[in-house]
Formats: sequence, structure tokens, C-alpha cells
Amino acid sequence: MTADEAAASAARGTVVLLPVGAFEQHGPGLPLATDQVRAEAVVERLADALGGAAVIGPGVPVGVSPHHAAFAGTVSLRPALFTAVVREYVESLAAHGWTRFLVVTGHGGNNAALGVLAQDLLRDRPDLEVAWAPVTAVARTAVGELETDEVTGHSGEAETSQMLHVAPHLVRRDRLAPGTTRLDEIEGFPRLGRSVPQPQVASAYDRLSGNGVLGDPRRATPEAGRQIVEEVVERLGSFVKEWLDL
Amino acid sequence: MTADEAAASAARGTVVLLPVGAFEQHGPGLPLATDQVRAEAVVERLADALGGAAVIGPGVPVGVSPHHAAFAGTVSLRPALFTAVVREYVESLAAHGWTRFLVVTGHGGNNAALGVLAQDLLRDRPDLEVAWAPVTAVARTAVGELETDEVTGHSGEAETSQMLHVAPHLVRRDRLAPGTTRLDEIEGFPRLGRSVPQPQVASAYDRLSGNGVLGDPRRATPEAGRQIVEEVVERLGSFVKEWLDL
Amino acid sequence: MTADEAAASAARGTVVLLPVGAFEQHGPGLPLATDQVRAEAVVERLADALGGAAVIGPGVPVGVSPHHAAFAGTVSLRPALFTAVVREYVESLAAHGWTRFLVVTGHGGNNAALGVLAQDLLRDRPDLEVAWAPVTAVARTAVGELETDEVTGHSGEAETSQMLHVAPHLVRRDRLAPGTTRLDEIEGFPRLGRSVPQPQVASAYDRLSGNGVLGDPRRATPEAGRQIVEEVVERLGSFVKEWLDL
Amino acid sequence: MTADEAAASAARGTVVLLPVGAFEQHGPGLPLATDQVRAEAVVERLADALGGAAVIGPGVPVGVSPHHAAFAGTVSLRPALFTAVVREYVESLAAHGWTRFLVVTGHGGNNAALGVLAQDLLRDRPDLEVAWAPVTAVARTAVGELETDEVTGHSGEAETSQMLHVAPHLVRRDRLAPGTTRLDEIEGFPRLGRSVPQPQVASAYDRLSGNGVLGDPRRATPEAGRQIVEEVVERLGSFVKEWLDL
Amino acid sequence: MTADEAAASAARGTVVLLPVGAFEQHGPGLPLATDQVRAEAVVERLADALGGAAVIGPGVPVGVSPHHAAFAGTVSLRPALFTAVVREYVESLAAHGWTRFLVVTGHGGNNAALGVLAQDLLRDRPDLEVAWAPVTAVARTAVGELETDEVTGHSGEAETSQMLHVAPHLVRRDRLAPGTTRLDEIEGFPRLGRSVPQPQVASAYDRLSGNGVLGDPRRATPEAGRQIVEEVVERLGSFVKEWLDL
Amino acid sequence: MTADEAAASAARGTVVLLPVGAFEQHGPGLPLATDQVRAEAVVERLADALGGAAVIGPGVPVGVSPHHAAFAGTVSLRPALFTAVVREYVESLAAHGWTRFLVVTGHGGNNAALGVLAQDLLRDRPDLEVAWAPVTAVARTAVGELETDEVTGHSGEAETSQMLHVAPHLVRRDRLAPGTTRLDEIEGFPRLGRSVPQPQVASAYDRLSGNGVLGDPRRATPEAGRQIVEEVVERLGSFVKEWLDL
Repeated sequence: MTADEAAASAARGTVVLLPVGAFEQHGPGLPLATDQVRAEAVVERLADALGGAAVIGPGVPVGVSPHHAAFAGTVSLRPALFTAVVREYVESLAAHGWTRFLVVTGHGGNNAALGVLAQDLLRDRPDLEVAWAPVTAVARTAVGELETDEVTGHSGEAETSQMLHVAPHLVRRDRLAPGTTRLDEIEGFPRLGRSVPQPQVASAYDRLSGNGVLGDPRRATPEAGRQIVEEVVERLGSFVKEWLDL
Repeated sequence: MTADEAAASAARGTVVLLPVGAFEQHGPGLPLATDQVRAEAVVERLADALGGAAVIGPGVPVGVSPHHAAFAGTVSLRPALFTAVVREYVESLAAHGWTRFLVVTGHGGNNAALGVLAQDLLRDRPDLEVAWAPVTAVARTAVGELETDEVTGHSGEAETSQMLHVAPHLVRRDRLAPGTTRLDEIEGFPRLGRSVPQPQVASAYDRLSGNGVLGDPRRATPEAGRQIVEEVVERLGSFVKEWLDL
Repeated sequence: MTADEAAASAARGTVVLLPVGAFEQHGPGLPLATDQVRAEAVVERLADALGGAAVIGPGVPVGVSPHHAAFAGTVSLRPALFTAVVREYVESLAAHGWTRFLVVTGHGGNNAALGVLAQDLLRDRPDLEVAWAPVTAVARTAVGELETDEVTGHSGEAETSQMLHVAPHLVRRDRLAPGTTRLDEIEGFPRLGRSVPQPQVASAYDRLSGNGVLGDPRRATPEAGRQIVEEVVERLGSFVKEWLDL
Repeated sequence: MTADEAAASAARGTVVLLPVGAFEQHGPGLPLATDQVRAEAVVERLADALGGAAVIGPGVPVGVSPHHAAFAGTVSLRPALFTAVVREYVESLAAHGWTRFLVVTGHGGNNAALGVLAQDLLRDRPDLEVAWAPVTAVARTAVGELETDEVTGHSGEAETSQMLHVAPHLVRRDRLAPGTTRLDEIEGFPRLGRSVPQPQVASAYDRLSGNGVLGDPRRATPEAGRQIVEEVVERLGSFVKEWLDL
Repeated sequence: MTADEAAASAARGTVVLLPVGAFEQHGPGLPLATDQVRAEAVVERLADALGGAAVIGPGVPVGVSPHHAAFAGTVSLRPALFTAVVREYVESLAAHGWTRFLVVTGHGGNNAALGVLAQDLLRDRPDLEVAWAPVTAVARTAVGELETDEVTGHSGEAETSQMLHVAPHLVRRDRLAPGTTRLDEIEGFPRLGRSVPQPQVASAYDRLSGNGVLGDPRRATPEAGRQIVEEVVERLGSFVKEWLDL
Repeated sequence: MTADEAAASAARGTVVLLPVGAFEQHGPGLPLATDQVRAEAVVERLADALGGAAVIGPGVPVGVSPHHAAFAGTVSLRPALFTAVVREYVESLAAHGWTRFLVVTGHGGNNAALGVLAQDLLRDRPDLEVAWAPVTAVARTAVGELETDEVTGHSGEAETSQMLHVAPHLVRRDRLAPGTTRLDEIEGFPRLGRSVPQPQVASAYDRLSGNGVLGDPRRATPEAGRQIVEEVVERLGSFVKEWLDL
């Protein structure tokens, strides 16, 4: 997109889609950039589905990942820094006329920082409308149908399936290996955090899983990934259409 | 508690309970300090239930409330400031030997800031264990049994019931009045945020409700409040006992 | 106070009274919250004395106490953080129409931070009028009449007397014990700071006193406390009345 | 790259290549992401040339571009924020064992912020070695051979040539148009900044050029772009080899 | 002083004298730099009096002066910035071995910021000893002997006398003019701040005095200035000698 | 300059000259304050040359010098702090009506921070015009004529010559000694930074030179210093005259 095209798009009142991710361990079989790859894949499909009603802004390839810091390659921004970066994107684009922003995060660890961002913008920029959504959790139907063990999540069935659908060339299928799948494999305070919905607990992943994986990614399939991604795109698309009165 | 008593408590390995709240509008019938009153009430009962295993630290009487700023009397801290205050509490107490902290928030608007705090501490102070919990949402059984309208929440049935139980002298019963109770009373972007679980949206309360209330507080009863508070205390107590291997 | 009452009070041009304190060691006989207890006691009596001309805002229960950090239980905010919190209170309330603020601090360690706050507000918010006062030092007549040793101050005669008056149930009378009472009990740089009015020096209290006390709290009486508190309320009341042209 | 591969690479003492760019106007014919596209193209070729001696870290797709803010689509980070982001990358990777970092910036506007970063790291992390380089200016031979007008630079011959070489599908050749090519087209303070090497001046591009272009991009050729890119890769490769004693 | 001399001085355990001032209006007859001129004059005489026991560090020529901002030429640092600058001086010099610092401020408006600095250093650098002193207030005997009106202070008798002694060529004697000399010349909130010692109040000087002066500088004499400066040097000298056990 | 004179100067549209320097090692023969001494000397001569068209603002006697921290006496501000100080000067003076600022830095280590400042002001204060210049590098003709060794620079021929011209009483001629003069005296990463113009590298001076000097200051002459200073004043004077259309 050139500057002229940006000017035209802003004038049409489009929604800006901002894909944000993480650069963190994803077990032995997935790349460090997994979350950004999935966020961008969703955002591209969503922009296609919405036609000229949405435009893709710059991404944030590194997110808030202190819980993965024990695993090599993980790069993490402090939450306040991540928040500041997304805010600068939003305010820069608002100066050109955009007022609606949908942040799509491939990484759940960014949720709190995005929540804080929304509160800060509510105070300082009440003229803007900002929504944010994770990827996997939006596909509650498709994810609900996956067969999983007692413990599942990071780099597990759902996430690996998405990667097999959107970027199969980046998946080392031969190295996919199960991580923690039962609650009794976890000890101490981190286990407590997995046992009840409240209180909440932030746990380092090296205390949750030896290889950084929760669940069994060998069960992942491209078809399950396709269903998840399509449901995400469909739900986010409906949201944007209602937003824009389309 | 004196300094000598603090030294003895820290040496026993107690959990520190930190009650945090808000200073914000709670409709025509509840006081601005409602969230802090409820958090302190829970924390006092929890400390009693846990005997010498827990100790109450200083509170934070003002929380993150930009969404209520249009209503008189609301005082709000920026999320980063709220986070910094709680962090100073935690680090000051950690210097005296405490390592376990449970933050009880009477205000849901503090959740994102507490999530960010937990991530920052995971990075900088991996020797500490920090958990955080709201009040109302912990009592999922008792709250699930309340009869409510389509829209309910802030200053509604659950919150008013708690106040009737823990601080009835602060409730202006004659002024309790229903707020927004149906989705079709809300318009535009805020309505979108109430319609689907994802994407998330931060909305100013003056766009959600004319009097700042969601639901009908006239349905509140001291008995419902008692059940909610007791369930919260029971669930948090179980959590702490498992934490301390009691 | 509810939101409606806040709106009415702000419209009347009331002064907001903000009680700030500390959460720090106060020797073997006084509670950690002593300074906040005294500040709130003064503010409540002052609000009563002023009738509808003043309103009580939220408090700050933790202050700037790095000099007490060696004693268990002490919680301290960095000065910049303390300043930011009070500023957020002031600016939040100013948004609802209040323009006059009187901060009453039970803790002398907050004075520098409050001085800085006043300078920052003078620059950024020249439309506001902010005054601040300690508690004990205001009662110069009553305090001048106390019989004390060469060294007196923190947790000593004046402070303990106030607590015996406003919150006797929180005083462990049987544990009250004298601290440092003579200059020659102090050594090195901290002694220098106590010998001359200028230059000023910040000293850690563990270098000033073994039990954290300066003076002999056993001399404290409820009657002396009553005289101090009444003089403070009277002087601050006169100040506010002249401020409001009452 | 997976976490296991990252661990192996760090253990080998590889140099981390960090491509940083900008998201800013590049005239009517080049995309907003031009600088990041070029930085990534150089970094990929450089990593290939260096074999296993270098590894590519995460990029920063938005840079310091306040001088382009008047043109639609431009997104800019404050210098302090940009510096903080790159620093977090460096410190995160240093925690995994890397000590050598080469930042390649496709955008000259990032140079001051990178200089500041290097000074901060020299103070706080003297154990790390950080070098940084722009793209175009490194190819002093190839760029010196370009035929240009009196004024050239942003989105001009050199930059457009690079894009025609590394990402021709992103260039709107039919829209390429000359911008400012003579000094007498510029007025006032910005002109002063272009006339002498010292003092330096920061100028908004809307005061330098109507379409945001300096020079005539129609003269650009893929062949010139190839020569520039190859010279950059060759010079940076020599630098890294000497660094690693290869 | 060269680097070698600095190394030798630090090794001897000398006290570092840091002169800080202001760049602010001083009425029609004194220069903007008055406070820094006086601080440097005192520090130079003090260093002479102490022989090799003290060394002069870099100064801070601009201080915290928001209350003078309405008068042309006034330059002011925010308190937090001023504090940070002095802290960097202290920590830089501490890295070379110095542990004792005496800040001499020619400007009373820096006091709160210096108090905050001392508290921060007490927390973060308990190995350092930092004292700070104003100039005029230290000479309590000589200043007490001055004949003044009801209101005196900024750019008045004491300050002008000092300038006539240490830098007479910078004083425009013919332009010296009285400012506010009676309390009833001041109105409203600023007057309140001059009437009682507590509560404290920060007032803009344009509300205190039409020409920025408090008192009558025409009464100033070089002799009075000499007495003030000599008393300051004598008192600070005694302080330093006791500090160093000389 | 008094406040009244400042008001008159600002009203005439003068350029403000801000001399900034450093407080850092300058080898065995030059004082720590060398850079500030040179900056002030240039600024004074420049102000004289420009007559009433320029005015001298407050200086910054300490700069960004982490690379000299290993040498005693060096005091350094973090770049962000240095930037903030100069910005406060600029914004304070802008409030009085000045819009044009020329920062003259005697220390090259301040360049990146000044570049960042200019970018921040371009964003936040587009109504201001800010230029900045080093001292030595401006005199490209005079410096080009100096006879030097392969390596020269800090505290070498050019800098010492300037000091011999503007402040000969501060130069310890008998202690002037050559530092590093050949590239093969430097090892490792710092050498790499001296060998090629790009990539850039920040190196600690204790890895560049045993006595902190680059080049041979014994070759310095007052005459060479005079030529350098005059060329700087002449070039900066032309710049300012063109700026003001004189």
C-alpha cells in the first residue's frame, strides 16, 4: 500500500486490522514466530473477506512472553512497552483519519497488555474505537470439537493444526512431540493455577512442561486447522460488518 | 499490627492478602468506595478463616476506572500507576521475607493491570508467587443462582447484595433504581462489546447506562450477599490452604 | 458518598480533604498504619468542623518511608510514585469540578514529594489551588508544651499521645518503650543530621534508634493527644475558612 | 527456527542480524513498508552469505518517522520507544547466550535512536557488542556511480532501484514520479538544512517535497539495485567475518 | 581538574561539592543566573577553606522554577528531571570512589526535589552519604540582623547583598527597585500561603509581586553580603569537618 | 541578562545559542570540562559576531559520556536525560516567544541525543526550528590542514589546539602526552569500529587508548586552535544570518 492508497482507504472509514504475535518457543516442532504467522494469516483472510472495508496495518512480531524466557530464542517485550508500541500505531493512524482498530493477537500473553491499552485509550482518546481478539479462543465451536487430553494449550492440538493449515512448510512434523497432558505432571504453584479458574496465576512454562508443550500436537490435522481459521475469520468478519453497519 | 508482629508473621511463611478496590460511581444507591469495602470485607473474613496462615497488607482504595469517569466522584489511576503501586507493596513486603501474595480486587477494571503486574514479576522476581482474584466472579455457584435480566453487572443484583450483607449502613435502599437491563437499550460500539465474548471492547459506562447501573439492584438481598461472600471466602480459603500445603 | 452527592458537593465549591499516611514501623507499641489513622482522624474532625464546606476524598495508606525499610512490615512508595498517585486523585476530582485541595499527611516523609507535586501542578494546572500540611507540626502550641528529652520525634510523646486519643484500642500500652533520647546515642552521619538545621540529611532509622523510636512514648497521654488534635483541626479549619471566604 | 535450533545457534557464538525499517510514505510508487522490505532482503542475503555464522532475529517493522507524518499511512515510533524495543530484543537474546548483534536499518531516521541505544548498552551491558548500519549508505561505491540531480534521497534513484531488484512486484512503476530535484525548489529552514553539512536540521518532508520524493525514481533500474544490494552484503559480510575471526 | 587529579582526590576520601542554582527572573536589577552565581561563589570559598578535603563537581545551572515562569527568560526543569540530573552526577562520581556529597543550592525551589533525591538514594544507594543546603537560610545570624519590611525574600535585601559581594559587576544598581513589601499587597490564595507556616502553598510569583521582587533590594549592601557568605562558608565548613572527622 | 532584557530579546526574534558540553576525561593534560569550555568559547564569539541577533541561553555542563566512564572524574548523563534537559530549556524559552535554537556541542557524544531531540520536537513542536552542530567537525578546512597520525581524535591535535587558544591557563602543557596513534595499537571489536565508516560501533575508550587520548596533543598549537575556532564561528555565523534573512 502506498501513501495515496492509505489516504483513500482512511477516507472510506475502513477498519484497521493490526496483527500482533510473539517470538517465543513453540516446542520442538513449531517455529518461534508461530503466533505472528497465525495472526497474519487470519488478518489476511479477514481483509479478503471484508473487501475494501478493512485495511491491514503494521504488525508487532514480538509480544509479551516472560513465561517462556527459559527456552532459547524467546524474545519478549515488557507489557508496558508492548502497549506503547500498539498505541503509537493506533495514534499514528488516527492522525490520518482512521477511528476503528481491531487488534488480532496470535498470542494470549498479549491480552492483559491490550486490555490496559484499551483502558488508556478510553481515557485519552474517547474518539477512537478499539477492539481486540485472540485467535484460537474465538473459534470456540471448532476448538470445542477437538479431542484433547486433560491438559492442552500452548503448541498443542489447536495451535499446531492452524500452522498445518496456514504454513505447513514451517512445521517440523517429525519433531512434534507431546508435552504435559495430565494435571498430575505439574507440581506446586503452577499446578494450582491450572486447577481452578480463579484466582489467576502467572506461571513460567519450564515449570509446566519439559519441552514447552501443553497437549499432544501429533493429533493436529490441517483440516482441524482449516476449521479453526475459518471460524475465526467468520466471527471476526461478522463483528466488523456489524461495527460498520454493512 | 506492629513491626515486631510483622517480623514474626513473615517468618512463619504467611500469605499476604492485599485488598484493592476502586473509587467510582456505583449508581444512585451505593457509595463510591463500594469495591474497596467489599474487597476488605472478603479479606478480613478470609484472614479469620485462615487463622495465622494469612496476614492483611495495605489496601489500594483507588483503582483503574476510566470507564466511569463521566460520573461525578470517580477517581481513577492509570493502569501503569496502579500496577506500580501494587508492585511496590509486593516488593516492600518481599524485602521482609514474604514470598506469597494474593491480591483480592473488588473491581473488575483492575484485572488487566494485575495481569500485567504478574507478568512483570514473573520476569523480575521469579522467587515470588503472586495470585489475584476478583470477588464476584469467584462465587460462580451463588452468582449463577441469582435471577437477573438480560443485562446485569455493575451495581446490579450481585454487587448490591454483597453490600447489603457486609455494609448495609452504606446502602441507600430508597435510592436503588434499575439501570440498563436489556441489550436493545444500548447502541453502537458499546452494544457490540456486550453481544459477543470476543473481540473484547472497552466501553464508557455513560454509553451503557444512564444512571451507571447494569441490572436491577432492587432485587438484591442480604441473604444472596451472604451466600456470595461465603462462597468467595471458601474458595479462596481452599486455594490458600493448598498453596501452603495445609 | 454516592456519585449524585459528589456532583452536588463539587457544584458547591467545596474543598477536598485528602488524608495521606504511611505504612511503616512505629516502634513496639504503635501499629504500622499509625500515620494514616491519625491523618484520617484529623480529616474526619476537620470535615465535621467545616460542615458542608469540605468533603473527604480517597486516602493514600502507604507513603514515602525508605528510612524505615530495615524494620519489618514497612511498605514504601518511591516519592515519584506517591506524587503520581496524589496527582491522579487531584486531576480526577478536578475533572468533576473541584479546584481546591488540602492534603493532610500523617507522615513527615511525604513532605518533599508533596512539595514536588505542588510545583508540578503549578506548572501544569495553574487553575487549581493545592495546599498541604503535616499533622503534628501544625499543633505548634500544644507540641511546644510537651515535656521531652533531648531527642524526640517518631513514635515518641506527641505521636503516641495522638493515638491514645484517636485510636486507643490500637496502642499496645504494655509494649511502649523509650527509644533514642539523647544525641550522644547516635553516631556518625545520622548524628550530624540531628545536630544542625542545615545542611539537611536523610538517615535510615536503624542508625538512629534500635527500636525505631525517638523519645519516650511512655510519657504520652490521651489528654496531650486531644490538645494536639484539636489545635490541628482548629488551625486547619481557620485556613480553609479564609480560603473560602467563610 | 525452533527453540532447539536457537539454543544450538547461540552456543555456536553466531551474530544476530536484526532488520529494522519504517512504515512511512515512499512517494506515489513505493509501498509504505519499503524500508523494512529492503532491510529484510539485505539481512536474508547476508545470512546466506555467512552460512551458519549468523542468525536472523525478529524485525522492527515501524521506525522513527516523524518527518513523514504529514503523509497518509505513515506510522512512527518515538525514538525512545524504538530504542526500547530494540534493546528488549538484544537483552532477551543475550539471556540465551548471544553477545554480538548487527542491526541493519532500511531507514536513516533510525540512526540517532540506534546511536543512543549503543551508548546505553555500553553503559549497562559492556559484555555485549552491538554494531548498526544503514543500507544505502553502506554501498558507497555503487551509490556514488548513480547519475542523479542536485537533490536526491528518499524514494529516489537508489532506493527505488533496490526495490526493483528485491521486490519488483511491490513497485508501481507507472506511478513513479520525480520529486524535488533542485535546491531552489525548497524554501526556508529546511533548505538551510540541505545546503550545509553542519549544523544539522530535522525537516518535515512536506516542506521538502510535494509528493514526498527527493530525486527522480524513474531513473531507477533493477541492475543498479542489484549492485547496491550486493555491495552492502559484501561489505557487511566482511565486517562480520573480521568480527568473528573467520 | 584532570582525570588523574580526580583519581587522586577520590582516593583521599574527599567530599564532593555540587553547586546547583536556577535560571529565573530576579527582578529588574539581578541577572537570571543569580542563584547559580551565588552557589558557585559559596562552593569555591568553601573548597578553599577546606583545602584538599573537598572537591568541586559539575554544577546544575537550571533548577526548578515553575513559580517564575510568567517572567521572561525563566528556564525551569521539572522536579523529577532536576532530581535525575543530580542523581546521575552522584552516581557517576560514586563509581569513581566518592561516597560523600554536599549539594549547595542557590535556589530554594530546588529543596523539595533534593529531599526526594535523598530519599531515593537512601533506598537505592545506602552506601552513600548525601547532604544538601540552601545558601541564604544557612546564614541565620547574618540574615536575622538585616532590617527588612514585613514581606521579604526573592531578589530582596539578602540576595542582592550577596550579589553585591560576590559579583557586583552583574548587578544593575540603577535598576534595583522594591517589590512587594507588605502582606496586604497580596491577594487570595497566595496571600494565605504567606500568612501561616502551615499548610504550605506553592504560588506563582506574578501573583505575589508585579516586578518579581519580594522586599526592597535598595537596602542591600556589599558588607551585608559579605557577612552572609562568610557565615554560610563557616557553617558548611564546620559541618564538613565534623563529617570527615577533621 | 535580566528578565526585562530577555523579554526585549525574545521580542526581536533572536536565535538562542545553547552551549552543551561534557564532564569527562581528556587525557593527562586537559581538564574534565574541556568540551564545555570550548562550546562556551565558540558561543560567546558567535554571539559577539552576530550582534543583537543572537542570545546565549543556559548551558549543559555534563553530556553523554558512557564511553569514558572507566576514567576517573567522568560524569555522564543517560542520553534520554540529556535530551530531556535540552528539551526543557527549549520549551521554557519557547514559552517566552523564542522559536529558533542553535545547540553548539563541544562533545560529539551528544550528537545522537540531539538528533533524537530534533525528531521529538519535529513531532511535538513543529512551530520551532532547532539546529545543532558540533564544534571541531564544523571547521572542516582548518581541521583538514592539521598534520596527524593514522589515528587521531579525542584530546588530540585539534581539541588541544582549541584549548590552547581559548583557555591556555587550563592546559597542563607539561603533561600532554600522545595516546593511540596507529590502528594496530587497538584490538578486537573497537578496532573494527575505527576501520570502516559503516557499520558503526560504540567503544569504551579504555579499549581504545591507555591514557584516553587519540592522536598526539604535543603537536597542538594556539594558532591552529585560533583557525579552527574562527572557522567554526564564521560558518555558524553564516548559517544564522541566512536563517534570519540578515
